[in-house]
Amino acid sequence: MGKYLTKRSEDYSKWYNELVVKADLAETSAVRGCMVIKPYGYAIWERMQSILDKKFKETGHSNAYFPLFVPKSLFEAEEKNAEGFAKECAVVTHYRLENDPDKPGKLRVDPKAKLEEELIVRPTSEAIIWNTYKNWIQSYRDLPILLNQWANVVRWEMRTRLFLRTAEFLWQEGHTAHATEAEAMYEAKQMNQVYADFVEQYMAIPIIQGVKSAAERFAGALETYCIEALMQDGKALQAGTSHFLGQNFAKAFDVKYATKEGSLEHVWATSWGVSTRLMGALIMTHSDDHGLVLPPELAPHQVVIVPIYKGDAEREAIALAVAPIIDALRKKDVRVHFDNRDTHKPGFKFNEYELKGVPLRIGIGPRDVANGTVELARRDTLSKTTVDQSELVNEVTKTLADIQQQLFARATQFRTNHTTEVDDFDTFKRVLEEKGGFISAHWDGTEATEIAIKESTKATIRCIPIDGIEEKGSCVYSGNPSNKRVLFAKAY
Amino acid sequence: MGKYLTKRSEDYSKWYNELVVKADLAETSAVRGCMVIKPYGYAIWERMQSILDKKFKETGHSNAYFPLFVPKSLFEAEEKNAEGFAKECAVVTHYRLENDPDKPGKLRVDPKAKLEEELIVRPTSEAIIWNTYKNWIQSYRDLPILLNQWANVVRWEMRTRLFLRTAEFLWQEGHTAHATEAEAMYEAKQMNQVYADFVEQYMAIPIIQGVKSAAERFAGALETYCIEALMQDGKALQAGTSHFLGQNFAKAFDVKYATKEGSLEHVWATSWGVSTRLMGALIMTHSDDHGLVLPPELAPHQVVIVPIYKGDAEREAIALAVAPIIDALRKKDVRVHFDNRDTHKPGFKFNEYELKGVPLRIGIGPRDVANGTVELARRDTLSKTTVDQSELVNEVTKTLADIQQQLFARATQFRTNHTTEVDDFDTFKRVLEEKGGFISAHWDGTEATEIAIKESTKATIRCIPIDGIEEKGSCVYSGNPSNKRVLFAKAY
Repeated sequence: MGKYLTKRSEDYSKWYNELVVKADLAETSAVRGCMVIKPYGYAIWERMQSILDKKFKETGHSNAYFPLFVPKSLFEAEEKNAEGFAKECAVVTHYRLENDPDKPGKLRVDPKAKLEEELIVRPTSEAIIWNTYKNWIQSYRDLPILLNQWANVVRWEMRTRLFLRTAEFLWQEGHTAHATEAEAMYEAKQMNQVYADFVEQYMAIPIIQGVKSAAERFAGALETYCIEALMQDGKALQAGTSHFLGQNFAKAFDVKYATKEGSLEHVWATSWGVSTRLMGALIMTHSDDHGLVLPPELAPHQVVIVPIYKGDAEREAIALAVAPIIDALRKKDVRVHFDNRDTHKPGFKFNEYELKGVPLRIGIGPRDVANGTVELARRDTLSKTTVDQSELVNEVTKTLADIQQQLFARATQFRTNHTTEVDDFDTFKRVLEEKGGFISAHWDGTEATEIAIKESTKATIRCIPIDGIEEKGSCVYSGNPSNKRVLFAKAY
Repeated sequence: MGKYLTKRSEDYSKWYNELVVKADLAETSAVRGCMVIKPYGYAIWERMQSILDKKFKETGHSNAYFPLFVPKSLFEAEEKNAEGFAKECAVVTHYRLENDPDKPGKLRVDPKAKLEEELIVRPTSEAIIWNTYKNWIQSYRDLPILLNQWANVVRWEMRTRLFLRTAEFLWQEGHTAHATEAEAMYEAKQMNQVYADFVEQYMAIPIIQGVKSAAERFAGALETYCIEALMQDGKALQAGTSHFLGQNFAKAFDVKYATKEGSLEHVWATSWGVSTRLMGALIMTHSDDHGLVLPPELAPHQVVIVPIYKGDAEREAIALAVAPIIDALRKKDVRVHFDNRDTHKPGFKFNEYELKGVPLRIGIGPRDVANGTVELARRDTLSKTTVDQSELVNEVTKTLADIQQQLFARATQFRTNHTTEVDDFDTFKRVLEEKGGFISAHWDGTEATEIAIKESTKATIRCIPIDGIEEKGSCVYSGNPSNKRVLFAKAY
């Protein structure tokens, strides 16, 4: 189990891949670039979904569902968006198979069943949704439209990695329509804030909120808000984005509304999304050489109880002692799992739950039963204490809260240690090479500089922080004047 | 609103189509045969999902996620299954678009980006899942596997209808693997029972549980359990199926496990699913010429409060009176919506909620405020009563329970009235033509007879009821001996 995991210091990338598989989160499939999300990984995703879904509804959004396919003519209507995704589209061209006359028992595509117009498997749904909104919006009374959809999307990536970059992934995509620019801008910022709160409070991952440079913007957006996190290997990860789309899609699909005053105006739009990529961020922020480390808020099991016994009599005595403990924990809404399997030894189970990142493990043997105690082990610190059963519920709830807080504090400390202010390009390159992390540097605001830095170092502008301080400075690359630092990093 | 709906007696099919659109449940999209599920329709589906998901988890199942695509070579591995779905498959053949050199601003499929092996958009996931299970199962310790997935699937239907038959639809598909035949059979029956309970208790639709004849079985199954419901136009609707797959998929994908005794055996399988088709069943069972009628268990809003006022002062006084009512109802977990929009008149709102099937409507005007009363209107009976505000919470909860019960009772009565025992073929044809509904008749058990009856009447065997009585009889078509009646009907 844990001991067979490659160490992060040896090969971070290999460690990640092994961990995802060994902790039963996901695995590759027979379909190039597509993953199987295993039950344990999916249970974490389900918790993320249910918390986010609640937050979306609290901010006035409803769920709906739009088609998986986008006819090519709609796909290409908003040119920048189409251009941005054209090179990674799965395309449906036929709607039937037939028996292969040359190979008995095999099938082939029926050439007579060619579609008149090809269908794109959605890489994102702006096109199909705005083509629909067109029919829903006539007057200001029909606005705003505040919808979200939980869906699968496909982007034909050439280099894929479980959760981080897969050809098919699961996500939610919000698509809203507004009467005014200000309202749409407010919405885009609001949803970026919802993401920031979720990622920090539930995933225990500190993030920087910012806007993307023009080169890094979503294809078709006028402004892309984002939350950026820092992984343990010093690379950044974009954890969520919220786009102010202006009137681009309204113009491409001719969506206008009658104002109160009777004039016709194009509608303003936003879209925003987070995906199963968040699973990658979760894993890479907290986990260690022993395996996954989960923040209690998202752990499918917050506590696992492992009995340590010889023979049926001890097993039964422990089960009896454990029953009221489970009961008391569940009453406090603690998600507890009693692993009473007789097919596996305690050592095996200890390893398994360490690898799977269960925040707290309770070990209980015959002596504990006699003494009214249990052994309580923390996954984050790997520390163990003996706790009186009478104190256990308090201790568990207190410790779970502490783990949640400590994980966030540790990740924040790591990010602070790995954010470096830099004022010249030699230092920029050296820090990036030797230390990694975020580099806070002045930038002259031109795409030429951004591209030159990327080509020279592979670092990109992760974001222009929204709470960045105005200060006079000169661009780390060109020396031209700049009035704000931006964050550079190599990124996932 | 309601008054503009075609009457069921005039054109049932047109009534259905209009209702789905006008009640804001779903609409057709720009993609042939694919629907847009609108927020109100999706909210009903979400309630169904959450109740079913809970039931699946209570019976030991976990959720997971498998790829959208199935490589052709896996798709064709289980021959009967492949044959059953080959004619309705969306096929991905390319993974990139390029600029169309002949049409500036347009895209075309990049002929250089042709896939080596075509990918089938899943019409069902047995193939991709059993190809995965193969790697998960070595020993009896790995069994059972009890998984479910919530997903979209695509079946290229030629004639589509919103919810009832769409090219893409949403569903859940359970896929389980077992060590023994008995255990798999138990699972298949258990999940059919879970569906039966859900459909009767929450959707208020009475169903008949049965097994399918060989001709109507799922492609690749040895036995298909089903629940069959009867719609108001006398046609049957298959509301859910649960398949005992035997060892067919284990053999096709070579999935074996080591028994406790050390021998190698093929694994036993089930799969089971319900889909957004249930929305069609819900609509067609309960709704009337005024619009949708929803059972309270599934209604997104169980109660809507519509204020009746002139001017701001009255509007405010009513809002003040309504606040504690909302509060008290929510404390009892009643889903209540206060429609205080000033942009629409009460009459418009009354029509809207009638059309949308909200079970209870509370109307409140200035006189009600003065008298401490409200007007309470039932959607199912369209009856109205004046209720004291002090009695309201009790009256609402009691009435909601009564509506739920009455809808089920009414649908059960309808089904009883439309189930006819028939012993000769002339009567069979006449009853089918004049009255419709289920025809309970003896059948000789042969596919030849089944086909002959279908060709002559369009009626199919909906199921062989599992609680059918053994009785000697002769086949309604061939006159050959039979020992059990089966249910025939025309079906959706």
